[in-house]
Amino acid sequence: MGLNMSFLRDRWYAAAWSSEIGRKPLGRKILGEDITFYRTESGQPAAVASRCPHRFAPLYYGDVVGENIKCRYHGLQFGPNGACVLNPDGSKPPPVSVKAYSVAERDSMLWIWMGDQKPQSGPPEYLSLAPTMGGLVRGLLHVNCHFLLVTDNLMDSAHATHLHAAFKTEAHVKAPKGNVRQEGDAVYYNVWAPDDLPNPFFLALYGKNIPVDQWVDVTWREPSTITVAAGVTATGRSREEGINTISVHLITPESEHSSHYFWILARDCRLENHEMSEMMRANVQRIFTEEDKWMIEGQQRMLGGAEFWSLRPALLNQDKAAAMTRRHVEKLIAEQDAKREEGTSLKANA
Amino acid sequence: MGLNMSFLRDRWYAAAWSSEIGRKPLGRKILGEDITFYRTESGQPAAVASRCPHRFAPLYYGDVVGENIKCRYHGLQFGPNGACVLNPDGSKPPPVSVKAYSVAERDSMLWIWMGDQKPQSGPPEYLSLAPTMGGLVRGLLHVNCHFLLVTDNLMDSAHATHLHAAFKTEAHVKAPKGNVRQEGDAVYYNVWAPDDLPNPFFLALYGKNIPVDQWVDVTWREPSTITVAAGVTATGRSREEGINTISVHLITPESEHSSHYFWILARDCRLENHEMSEMMRANVQRIFTEEDKWMIEGQQRMLGGAEFWSLRPALLNQDKAAAMTRRHVEKLIAEQDAKREEGTSLKANA
Amino acid sequence: MGLNMSFLRDRWYAAAWSSEIGRKPLGRKILGEDITFYRTESGQPAAVASRCPHRFAPLYYGDVVGENIKCRYHGLQFGPNGACVLNPDGSKPPPVSVKAYSVAERDSMLWIWMGDQKPQSGPPEYLSLAPTMGGLVRGLLHVNCHFLLVTDNLMDSAHATHLHAAFKTEAHVKAPKGNVRQEGDAVYYNVWAPDDLPNPFFLALYGKNIPVDQWVDVTWREPSTITVAAGVTATGRSREEGINTISVHLITPESEHSSHYFWILARDCRLENHEMSEMMRANVQRIFTEEDKWMIEGQQRMLGGAEFWSLRPALLNQDKAAAMTRRHVEKLIAEQDAKREEGTSLKANA
Repeated sequence: MGLNMSFLRDRWYAAAWSSEIGRKPLGRKILGEDITFYRTESGQPAAVASRCPHRFAPLYYGDVVGENIKCRYHGLQFGPNGACVLNPDGSKPPPVSVKAYSVAERDSMLWIWMGDQKPQSGPPEYLSLAPTMGGLVRGLLHVNCHFLLVTDNLMDSAHATHLHAAFKTEAHVKAPKGNVRQEGDAVYYNVWAPDDLPNPFFLALYGKNIPVDQWVDVTWREPSTITVAAGVTATGRSREEGINTISVHLITPESEHSSHYFWILARDCRLENHEMSEMMRANVQRIFTEEDKWMIEGQQRMLGGAEFWSLRPALLNQDKAAAMTRRHVEKLIAEQDAKREEGTSLKANA
Repeated sequence: MGLNMSFLRDRWYAAAWSSEIGRKPLGRKILGEDITFYRTESGQPAAVASRCPHRFAPLYYGDVVGENIKCRYHGLQFGPNGACVLNPDGSKPPPVSVKAYSVAERDSMLWIWMGDQKPQSGPPEYLSLAPTMGGLVRGLLHVNCHFLLVTDNLMDSAHATHLHAAFKTEAHVKAPKGNVRQEGDAVYYNVWAPDDLPNPFFLALYGKNIPVDQWVDVTWREPSTITVAAGVTATGRSREEGINTISVHLITPESEHSSHYFWILARDCRLENHEMSEMMRANVQRIFTEEDKWMIEGQQRMLGGAEFWSLRPALLNQDKAAAMTRRHVEKLIAEQDAKREEGTSLKANA
Repeated sequence: MGLNMSFLRDRWYAAAWSSEIGRKPLGRKILGEDITFYRTESGQPAAVASRCPHRFAPLYYGDVVGENIKCRYHGLQFGPNGACVLNPDGSKPPPVSVKAYSVAERDSMLWIWMGDQKPQSGPPEYLSLAPTMGGLVRGLLHVNCHFLLVTDNLMDSAHATHLHAAFKTEAHVKAPKGNVRQEGDAVYYNVWAPDDLPNPFFLALYGKNIPVDQWVDVTWREPSTITVAAGVTATGRSREEGINTISVHLITPESEHSSHYFWILARDCRLENHEMSEMMRANVQRIFTEEDKWMIEGQQRMLGGAEFWSLRPALLNQDKAAAMTRRHVEKLIAEQDAKREEGTSLKANA
């Protein structure tokens, strides 16, 4: 089922925060596949298909035993590589297995490789931060919409002015067209708002309501990660003299109509101020939940079952980055599907 | 989507009570179409398709700005005629529009024209009452069933005896067959219950538990309005000497399986008695909600996906008015669809 | 609709506990068919199709009048044989009827015959208990899964060890393969756990934590009844000297994805101890609800729409009884469907 959906495969995806993976298995759907995550006794994360091949009980109801996950229904045990390693009746384990997924922990994130081939390298370093950065906060949201609607939202700074009082600045909507470009599999755009008062989000962190230059530099990387470097500095001063933040947004498709949305936010100032950290965490979570979420879920409802482009969106200058990103993802998926098709034909002819 | 459903088009439908339309947009589905209603700064009601042509956000989440509705997501503004009149980036508005619906306010009701052509005249005057009438109360109900099941219910006085203690009278079930007739696009029936005690509903209003003549005169008019003139008078006296009520019931299809049900009730006596008004309002709302609603929603469940006639209802004399009405609606829809088909063929041949 | 589902027809099924059938009609779906159960004034149970042939209101909203059920919407009355016997307008009843089901009460259970032909004999005597048995308790559960997943669960003693602390015994998982056999339309298996401490469920009843021989003898009979004789006795003593229990489990399909699960439990000791009865009743209900139900509903989710065998379960020795039962049910259904097919062809050729 998952294979027929339009997702980029043979990629690392954000699966869970490390802190979510423990001795109590976690069931989570990724790219339409039902997956059970757990942490072995030796501390290693593991991910296997949730359907026990014995009689199809969900393994996420199971227990961790040593390195294995044990089905709660009949006690079969499966290793992190998916192989059945214990038959509870004491005889030889049956020669069955569940699909095992390559996983890797990096930067407090559990990454999962969604693909048919093994990964050639580790997960991306998007969550690795510069040494000057700290006060890191994070969150996880669930959104009932296609992952590209979340991407659209993040690749479009214009909406911030209309939807988010905290991010409001005229610069967002002043045709940032010239500032969009694609390089390989990445799309960039940036917003530059010189000599204005800081927006409420930055004011809280900056502490001074004086004229500043404000910037937002956004990078999308496939399959679905967006990095935002944003900050303010006193008008005319260097960025180093101001305050800088980095946020990373990882959108992992759950199904054709729902997504997991992981995010982190770090800063280079007032690092030890935990009240500030908590306020920023709560702010991001609130802004998304109360302002973005219902809007993009509303878009999903308005789309109904229709394909996005079939409804002929009236794209504006401000949509350039989002449209470029969407087109690029679709191109990559089309290429992938053509390749798979080809592979299937070759096999059929052999 | 809406166009493929079996509804009568090129008609005025009840869309909302005037009091529902304000500066906060109202999203409501009518005949399967997602529509956003609002009132402009100058006080005019407006109705436009809910899906913003920019990136498909729901306009009912938007804000009213002057005469326009502004999409909350990116700030595009659309006039009451549906045209995009403001591009938030300051450049020329894109040449896009949303479908605008003709609406008209009359008798505290917002009417909407559901059709491809413009209306040739205003909404019907069904809610206009005789000068002697007053104490008007109104309500709005939502029912999870096809609009014709609500119509059936109202065009069938027999059920009142079985389902409604407040309306109980033997006369309702004594073959009112002879009293049903169709004239053009209207269906009439009436019930005459001479020399009986008033039913509980009228007793409350009449105040005297003495023998009365009781009547119910019902008119259905296409597409979906039912007017009921009912009252009691002391046995043998004229109607003018008794008490008279008028109720109007407007059933607007929401989808193939759900309906909006608007109603009013007025009377010609004790007009200034507000407790009486409130009691009558609460009574009608309660009777429908507690007695009719679950029954006709039960019919809808029993129908499942089946077409009404395909299950061969065992029609009785008492069903004559309901069946005549249903047949007439179906005939009008068939004629309409044949005409549309023809129009399509002509175009294709041109 | 019901006819196209894969159920064994021309069988008696458990429909309701006698105590559920009274003057207030009960709507319940059995084998996909919407059925209204009621008890007539003379005390006889009756079951008729729920959809009134008049205008399709659900008869389970109706009232019992004498021997008949009266539709609440318009007052038509139907006898226990399904025939319309009263037209509320006083004229001759219309020549319509609802399907009437053969029902029979036996052992406090209302049984229903689901078939096209009339039953040749009464319902089975599975619930009749030996005279030594008493302290009977019973229950009814609703499970959102195919009835064969409940059957699998009961025909598989191995799961008891993993899922149920109260039933835990090593013997359950020690390859009970040799103890499974089929005779005609029945499947048997038994578990023998000699010289062990009683499990917690039996300890409560037995009262002595001394070494015992413990047994579980299970019989499945088509279409869907499982009888379990279980008990403990001091190691080496006869069963008569120990304590014995009988439980009967009747799984009636509601739809392709949901089931009614009726059960009784009786014992041959401490019969007058009502606290013991109540404790055992609560225990069975709790164990199923808290331990089995979510697991087999999880299996149903993991199956999705797939057919059980198409996912190639990795059957173990311990699955022999469940697999034998499942295969036998499927064989009986296939034979039944072939016969029906043949009957249809013969008719078509005639």
